[in-house]
Amino acid sequence: MAEICEYCQIAGGYGDILFETPYWIIYLAPSQRYLGTCVVALKRHSKDLSDVKKNEWIDFGIIVTKLEHALEKVFKPTLYNWSCFKNSAFRSSKPNPEIHWHFIPRYKDEVDFENLRFIDQDFGYIPQPIKKEIPHKIQEKLKKAIIKHIII
Amino acid sequence: MAEICEYCQIAGGYGDILFETPYWIIYLAPSQRYLGTCVVALKRHSKDLSDVKKNEWIDFGIIVTKLEHALEKVFKPTLYNWSCFKNSAFRSSKPNPEIHWHFIPRYKDEVDFENLRFIDQDFGYIPQPIKKEIPHKIQEKLKKAIIKHIII
Repeated sequence: MAEICEYCQIAGGYGDILFETPYWIIYLAPSQRYLGTCVVALKRHSKDLSDVKKNEWIDFGIIVTKLEHALEKVFKPTLYNWSCFKNSAFRSSKPNPEIHWHFIPRYKDEVDFENLRFIDQDFGYIPQPIKKEIPHKIQEKLKKAIIKHIII
Repeated sequence: MAEICEYCQIAGGYGDILFETPYWIIYLAPSQRYLGTCVVALKRHSKDLSDVKKNEWIDFGIIVTKLEHALEKVFKPTLYNWSCFKNSAFRSSKPNPEIHWHFIPRYKDEVDFENLRFIDQDFGYIPQPIKKEIPHKIQEKLKKAIIKHIII
């Protein structure tokens, strides 16, 4: 699995699985600086997006819609950032990058969830790779809240 | 067209057109902090990636391959960053975001092009939205060098 990715902020994995499709696995990211941040990882090992095949792109498009629509129902973010960077893998002397997307909801206004306050301090600007973990129990509730609105 | 996008760094457009497809237009970005940076913009106005249709995703996948393979032949970057952020549009009181992707080649080693030296000072980390314009004549040569290797 991945090294410590700047947005994922975890060594050895991308977090808890939310759901999966024939080609991708969707995780709730360990770092929740931006509430609802997820990772969409290609199931097979591949270095560049140019390796992604037609059916994988079609499947990815469906996942994008499922995630954006689910978050819309749970927290109504203002917009969504998507990125496939893979930078951190190249800090290693033997880079072994994997294709994984960062899905980062962004919020103009603050959001309360389970008595935790989430303020997007970088709204209007690029997301910052700063780790923010939340208590395990709240992470579990967040996972359930999103899954509930994923249309399978 | 877009406001001043953080990566595009231009008001009123995304740069010079490299090529277009039925659904997307591909520009050479005005800011070349990362040599070969391009913008891939959806031709129709749309706010979220969840609006992108199946045929547009398939077409986008083909563009990804064309751009990565062309850059590979011209400058051999170490990796490629892709992102669809749209943050800057939300600094406006009346946000009117458009779907556009940033294609940002990243380089472990320095590259010389037309006697200009390009050093990726942020290699291994997220790309920084810092403007770097190059002389118009060199921008034109860069455009031609990339187009030459785009397989239509």
